[in-house]
Amino acid sequence: MASSRPDRYCGEAVRRTLDVIGGKWSMLILWELLQEECRYAELQRSVGSISQKVLSSELKSLVAAGLVEREVEATVPPQVTYRITERGRSLEGVFSALQQWGDDQPHPK
Amino acid sequence: MASSRPDRYCGEAVRRTLDVIGGKWSMLILWELLQEECRYAELQRSVGSISQKVLSSELKSLVAAGLVEREVEATVPPQVTYRITERGRSLEGVFSALQQWGDDQPHPK
Repeated sequence: MASSRPDRYCGEAVRRTLDVIGGKWSMLILWELLQEECRYAELQRSVGSISQKVLSSELKSLVAAGLVEREVEATVPPQVTYRITERGRSLEGVFSALQQWGDDQPHPK
Repeated sequence: MASSRPDRYCGEAVRRTLDVIGGKWSMLILWELLQEECRYAELQRSVGSISQKVLSSELKSLVAAGLVEREVEATVPPQVTYRITERGRSLEGVFSALQQWGDDQPHPK
C-alpha cells in the first residue's frame, strides 16, 4: 500500500506542472498557440465549445503564468493577438507525449 | 493567423488524450496509481485537498475509461482497492514529460 514513497519528490514535479498548465481547456489553448499566434476569435473557433468567460479567464491565467503573451494593436477597434512564450514553448515535450498517446488509441469510427 | 493547418489531425490526438485523462485531479490520481495500488482513503491522503465527491466521480470516470480497475474484497467492512490498468500504464510517457517539465522549473523557496 502507500508507503512513504521515494517518488514523493517526483509527484511534486508533476503537481507543479499541472498547477501551471491547468486543465483541458488551458491545454487545448496552449496546443493551438504552439502551432501559431492567434486572435481571440480564432482561438474561440479552434478550441471549440468553450465559453467566452472560460476562454478569457484561461487566457488570463496563462498570461499570468508566463506561458502566453498578449499584444494589443492600437487599431480601431483594437486587435488582440495571443502568442506562446519561450516558457510556453518548453512544454512541447508534454504535448508530443499527449499527441503520441492519442495517436496510439483506436480512433472513433 | 489560423490557416487550415496540417496539424488539425495532431490537435485531434491531443484532444482525444485530454478527453480520456481529464483534468488536474484525475491526472494526480493516475500519477499516484502509477506508483502503486491504493485504497480509497490512501488516495484521498496522497492526492490531498480533494473532496470525497470529486475523488469518487474522478475514480468512476477513470474506471469507465479503462485506465483504473476497482477491486472489492468481501471483508467486513468491504475493502476497495484501486489499481492502474495496462491502458493506464501506457500513459507513463505523458507523466514523465509532465515530471520533466516540473523538474526544469525553478522550485518554490
